Amino acid sequence: MPDHIVSSFDQDLEKLRRTIAEMGGIAEKMLADSITALVRRDASLAQAVIASDQRLDVLQRDLEEFAILTIARRQPLAIDLRETISAIRIASDLERIGDLAKNIGKRALAVGGQFEHQKVVLGVQTMSERVSGQLKDVLDAYTTHDTQTAIGVWERDGATDALYTSLFRELLTYMMEDPRNITFCTHMLFCAKNVERIGDHTTNIAETIHYLVTGQTIAADRPKNDRSTAPADAAS
Amino acid sequence: MPDHIVSSFDQDLEKLRRTIAEMGGIAEKMLADSITALVRRDASLAQAVIASDQRLDVLQRDLEEFAILTIARRQPLAIDLRETISAIRIASDLERIGDLAKNIGKRALAVGGQFEHQKVVLGVQTMSERVSGQLKDVLDAYTTHDTQTAIGVWERDGATDALYTSLFRELLTYMMEDPRNITFCTHMLFCAKNVERIGDHTTNIAETIHYLVTGQTIAADRPKNDRSTAPADAAS
Repeated sequence: MPDHIVSSFDQDLEKLRRTIAEMGGIAEKMLADSITALVRRDASLAQAVIASDQRLDVLQRDLEEFAILTIARRQPLAIDLRETISAIRIASDLERIGDLAKNIGKRALAVGGQFEHQKVVLGVQTMSERVSGQLKDVLDAYTTHDTQTAIGVWERDGATDALYTSLFRELLTYMMEDPRNITFCTHMLFCAKNVERIGDHTTNIAETIHYLVTGQTIAADRPKNDRSTAPADAAS
Repeated sequence: MPDHIVSSFDQDLEKLRRTIAEMGGIAEKMLADSITALVRRDASLAQAVIASDQRLDVLQRDLEEFAILTIARRQPLAIDLRETISAIRIASDLERIGDLAKNIGKRALAVGGQFEHQKVVLGVQTMSERVSGQLKDVLDAYTTHDTQTAIGVWERDGATDALYTSLFRELLTYMMEDPRNITFCTHMLFCAKNVERIGDHTTNIAETIHYLVTGQTIAADRPKNDRSTAPADAAS
């Protein structure tokens, strides 16, 4: 294959990687800012989170189109094909993380003037700090093609799910204690669920990195400790 | 281009369309069965819904792989490229519809033995009948490349979102009336939200069909009547 073709393809891959890096940065900031907006009841920060989702949508659509044209034009094989497919998959996860953070931003606006149970908000914040760490680490793992770090993120998400379940139960008790807590706690339930789902997307990205580097899927089932829909909870 | 190449590519497209049809059938059945399991508290039906999600995941992964190999092998242009890309996007929406129906199945198990507020379950059922109709129509529109039907589905989803918002408020009032309703109603809130999100996926599919047939995106913003995160609801 002539040199100039190889280097054009390398430029295509480089463009895909740069777009993922930009999308990752936006998604990380959206998650952090949505939680800050929730904790501080900062309406203008919440609005900014909601507004930045559009940029993420545009980047994802452009990346998908560019990646598919790259596949059609260059007909890459093996690792190069996996690089291109992985970029499409990771962009889709980052776009969905943006949607979830945007929804937290909307709820930060919705609960603006309501009765405040700061302990509950802090529970969501603790969860989101864990998940932010997962997101940061998995994006680093993508940059460095580091499967060990990716598997580490994938394993950590089990504890995040467990944290969600315990927060879910705690929120139910606040709601039972005082009906005035119900609307607020319901929004917090959805915020916590959104953070839990962002965690799931970090595990999807970890799986994609493993496939990218090794060509194999991660064999074992991911540890899943979200018991909030488990039959035992029917009693709580 | 020799005839046998054209017909091989047609066979590839036919295979993609057949897989989408199979996935659509599974997703429709999962949605219907998950709601029936919820209404009748039918644990074995709920288990069947949960089990069938795996087949949908496998079909989606296989379709994505096959579609990308088709693009690399055949380098399709214009309408043929759009057919291939559209199949990837629709498969991804159907896979997510399956995830949401599976989650309803899990909640049907979780609420199995609980206090029952049948009126609330019927509210979720009414919403899901609307959304089932949207899903059926949008899958038909894909088969027949019918943009008018696709746009119709896209427009109908606004009323589905409005129904969700009214159900959301109704559920909050039941929770405030009696703390014993809280756990049950919380699960119903998530079920209703899942059905609303399935509705969103039918509008995504409608948008994909429009792009497939016309090469253009739908210009106007989709009517969005989910007001459950609107600031005004903070008062309710």
